[in-house]
Parts: sequence; C-alpha cells; structure tokens
Amino acid sequence: MQPLRNGKTLLFPNRPVLAGWASAGGKKEAEGPLSDWFDLKLSEGHFHEKTWEKAESRMQRMTLGCLLKKTGLKTNDVDAVFSGDLLNQCIGSTFALRATGLPVLGLYGACSTMAEGLLLAAAAVNAGYCSRAVAMTSSHFASSERQYRFPLGYGGQRTPTAQWTVTGCGAVLVREGSGGPAVTAATPGAIADKGVKDANNMGAAMAFAAYQTIRAHLEETRLSPEDFDAIVTGDLGWLGHELVAELFRRDGVRLDGRYLDCGLMIYDRARQDVHCGGSGCGCSASVLCGKLLGEMKRGTWKRILFCGTGALLSPVSVQQKESIPAICHAVQIEQ
Amino acid sequence: MQPLRNGKTLLFPNRPVLAGWASAGGKKEAEGPLSDWFDLKLSEGHFHEKTWEKAESRMQRMTLGCLLKKTGLKTNDVDAVFSGDLLNQCIGSTFALRATGLPVLGLYGACSTMAEGLLLAAAAVNAGYCSRAVAMTSSHFASSERQYRFPLGYGGQRTPTAQWTVTGCGAVLVREGSGGPAVTAATPGAIADKGVKDANNMGAAMAFAAYQTIRAHLEETRLSPEDFDAIVTGDLGWLGHELVAELFRRDGVRLDGRYLDCGLMIYDRARQDVHCGGSGCGCSASVLCGKLLGEMKRGTWKRILFCGTGALLSPVSVQQKESIPAICHAVQIEQ
Repeated sequence: MQPLRNGKTLLFPNRPVLAGWASAGGKKEAEGPLSDWFDLKLSEGHFHEKTWEKAESRMQRMTLGCLLKKTGLKTNDVDAVFSGDLLNQCIGSTFALRATGLPVLGLYGACSTMAEGLLLAAAAVNAGYCSRAVAMTSSHFASSERQYRFPLGYGGQRTPTAQWTVTGCGAVLVREGSGGPAVTAATPGAIADKGVKDANNMGAAMAFAAYQTIRAHLEETRLSPEDFDAIVTGDLGWLGHELVAELFRRDGVRLDGRYLDCGLMIYDRARQDVHCGGSGCGCSASVLCGKLLGEMKRGTWKRILFCGTGALLSPVSVQQKESIPAICHAVQIEQ
Repeated sequence: MQPLRNGKTLLFPNRPVLAGWASAGGKKEAEGPLSDWFDLKLSEGHFHEKTWEKAESRMQRMTLGCLLKKTGLKTNDVDAVFSGDLLNQCIGSTFALRATGLPVLGLYGACSTMAEGLLLAAAAVNAGYCSRAVAMTSSHFASSERQYRFPLGYGGQRTPTAQWTVTGCGAVLVREGSGGPAVTAATPGAIADKGVKDANNMGAAMAFAAYQTIRAHLEETRLSPEDFDAIVTGDLGWLGHELVAELFRRDGVRLDGRYLDCGLMIYDRARQDVHCGGSGCGCSASVLCGKLLGEMKRGTWKRILFCGTGALLSPVSVQQKESIPAICHAVQIEQ
C-alpha cells in the first residue's frame, strides 16, 4: 500500500475525483469579473427570507440542490457533508442541512473552511470511508457585518485595509472513481499568530499562516512553485497577497504571476468599492467552485494549490485585546 | 483490504488505539460523583485569567499539557488536533492551540464535538494519514451562560428542564499500534429537528438525534444493545435520557441499565442544584476522558458506544423563532 502521509502532508494516491461543483454569488459578486462562473446569481440580499441568517442558509440549500442536479445525484447518494460557516454556531450550514437526512461533520475554520472541508472529504473518499462526500460553505455580507462588526444601518466607515465579505457559496462533490480533476495531497495548517490586533486588517493577520502552510506543502511534496499553474490563497486581499509574496521573496522564492488570491479575483477593485478585496468563507468557496475548477476542466491549468485562509478571531477576543490567530490549509488539485 | 464502511458507518479494522487521555473539571464537577476521575481539578472559575473565555482556553492548554505528560510525548509528536468548543468562533480551542505549532482541524458540533473529533481522529489514524492525533474539547459554565443565555449577574431563574453547563475539558490521544482500548467503528449523525423551540430544554431537542444515530449504528454494525456494556449519550440529562429509552421501548428494544448519559453521571442531582443534569462540550469530553476510558482500562467494560449529542442552536436562531436542530455521532470503543 502506498503511504498516505509525508510529514504532516496527507497523500491521496487513489485520486478522489472532484466530480461536480456549484457556486452562488450575490448581486455585487455577479457584477464582478467572475460573473459568468456562478451557477446561481442572487440579485436580492434576503433571497425572499425574513432575515440575513435565513438567507445565508437558503443560499447553501440552493447551492447543494444545484450541485446534486448538475451531478445527477439524489440527496441520499451522498455519504457525508463537511460544512461550516462564519455565523455563530454555524447556523448557516446547520439549518441548510437539517432536512437532508445526510450525515454532517460540522467544521469551524473561519474563511479556511472550504479547504478544510475539501481536505477532509478527499481524505474520507481516498481511504474508502465514503463513496461520495460533499464540502460546502458560505458567507453573507450582511449577516457577517452584523455579527463581526457593526449593524449596517450604523453606517460605519471602513478603514483602507478592510475587506468586503463575499455573499457567496460553493459546494463540491468528491467521489471515488476516475476522471478529473482530483485531489492528490493536502496539508492541514498550524495556527500562526504574529500579533496583529486590527480586526480590519485580516490580510496581514493571515499572511504568515498562508506562507507557513504553502512552504510546508512544497517541502513535504518536494514540489516547487513552478510545478503549479496557480497557487491560490483564499482571502488575503491586496495587502495580504503582497505580504505572502514578500515572505517568499525573502526565502529567494519567486511566486510571480502564478500566485493568485480569491479575494482579489472576485471583485474589480478599480470599479467596485471593496478596499483590499473580498473575504469570507464564501469567497474562496465560490471562486473554487466557479473559476478555479472551471479552468481546470477547460484544461487551462493542470495542477493548482488551493490554500484556504482563516482569521480565527471573534468579536469577544477582539474586545479582550487579543491578537488574531490565523490558519491556512492547502489542497493540491490535479487534472 | 477490509472494507472501511458499511452504509454510513465507518469501520476501523486497524484498531486505532486510545493511548492516553486527560480530563479537567471545575469546582462543582470536582464536588460531584466523578471527582476521582479528573486529572485536573480547577477550584476557581477564572483559573487566574482575566476573563472566562481566556480561562476556558487555559483549561484546554492545561489538559493538552497533561495528556502529553501522561503519554510521554512532546508536542511535535502529534500529527493533528481535532478540536472545537461552544464559544463563538471556537476561541476556546483556537487560542489554546495557537502556540503549539500543531496542525489544527477546527470543528463545530456543539456538545457532540468530542465524539466528532474522536471519529475523525480515529479515521485519520486508521487510514494512515496520522500516526498520532488528538481530539479535544471543553466548555465553561460562565462563558457559556454569558454567550447563550443571560449574564450571570442578572440572576435569572432556571426552568425545571434546564441543564447546567459543565466546566470541564477532555483530550484523548489516538495512535497507531496495538493495545487498548481502540476505536473500531463510528457512525456520523444526520441532523434531526423535531420542532422543539425551548432553548432551556435541550435534552428533548437532542433525544431524537441520539435515538436515530444509535439505531443506525446498531443496524449497520449488526450489533444489539446487549453487545455493549454501556451505551452512553453525551448530555441529554434526565428528560432526554427518558425520551431515548422510550423511543427504543416503542421499537421493542430495551436498553435497561446499560444506557447511561454523561450529563446524569457528572453531578449528583439530589445534592447538586443542576436541574436535569450536566451539558456542554466539556460534559461528555471530561466523562469520556475520565470515568469511561478509565473503566475500560480497568476491564469493567469491554465494549461501549460513546454517543456525543449536540444542539445546533444559536442565540440568533432562537430569537428568530427557529426550532433546535440536533445531531449525534456514535463511536464504538473496545478493549
């Protein structure tokens, strides 16, 4: 039997296949450069629900429904769902899944949740615990602002380093069998905390975690950046992206044009008022389940490293003057 | 190769070993009937920290330290930690682990977190992704009350069906190799929501989820209740325990004295003012990592089913008049 680990990196020699994916984006996201990649474009923030939290939950339900339709599966064909979100007690995911009857393994990885879920779903399928597993997550601009920052009606000003929480969702089906793209390896991240305390500068808070996990993944897989067509972080935004590139430059490693960030891809910063870029669980999830996997299917890219990044703060930890711990999980996807 | 699943149940033929465990309890827990089983007894709620949240985080750090000491390991010998807690954005776990450098897979399963973490840690070790993995979780009475209910200073009355959130923590090391006790199978649960809306009656909200997962586990492993020395739910308390027993009675299945509940074991309800019993992530975690695994080590029990139960509500979902979804994950442990 082939080894399933090297250092802390998990290896998936059975090549669990990404057999289908679905993504949803809100109004602002559908006006951005990735518009054509969304399966569902939701033009109204409440999606006909009474509250933003219920709207976020509905968005996950709709995206899962879309995924099942695209893959021709019935709900019960899925063995397990790995999901979570940013809302307190992950009610976005929980309420979306409560009527499905599917086994749910609830996650909290902040904005790294899509990568964490994909890592665990691929691990479960590669080992043979599941035949088909789904990884899913979402975020909603309005439910996040209410919970993490200020009520929208307050009209607070945003600082230059702030990012814009994406209203979006992504769901991906991992299954046994052949075909592509497939998940071939993944590195779960350790928490990094370099003392950043500004909750409006999460790119800076997360940059070192991203650098640390990407470096560990490259070392343990013995691959170099040139072996990837794209290395894509989740939601570092403009400042975090700069910092990661700089940390690698100091090691003498140039990531150049192959280093992308979902938070920079999802909006047009020149035209859309999003300051440093997009953020939120739904940012990397909707970009993965739209453009990233779409480009792999087209054959534009043969191998990418998808690196979900999460800031593990809470409003309480910020009020208690704590710095912001961050995490990054890296998932290697190959055609 | 032996199959690793039957239905939705995961099978662990390589018998990942529970090589060590550690538990902590607060003042009230140390005054209860399980007092002798705690490794750490914390007599003062703040544990010398400035806030309850920091105290909860410190309790996890201390419990992990105790586990490493008991097992003779250095921090870096651990390949991954599966952890989460009840605090918003799981800051109890995150801040406990931020300085360890260990890969962290963050979970949110409410009070089912210990079972969810143990399931995933055992799956990772059985497959060969990890050599040693830790599952850990905690709860703290005061941090939970503040977040889910009322500030303690408010002095609100508790209803008869209320439970008392345990100040406690449990951490268990799963590793490759031989010896016992070992995890041999586990069934991840589906969410059940029978419409209970009273956030002070979580036993009733969770009972059906527990019944559903235990029944699925028995069916898929082709075992009957008599094959277990104990079937132990997490924190259903007196009312939830009655309801689960009644649901099985209706199926013609008698669980009798082998059906236990950690929420009933941790306090002496006649002597301690806890209404329906204990609850919280730390309830099942500290009972598992104290009495349950202790009794297995002594040889009192040969096979148990540990069934973590979680109520997936949030204060926001309650305010929005939602009912309470619940989940239960079952983990089979054998000597």
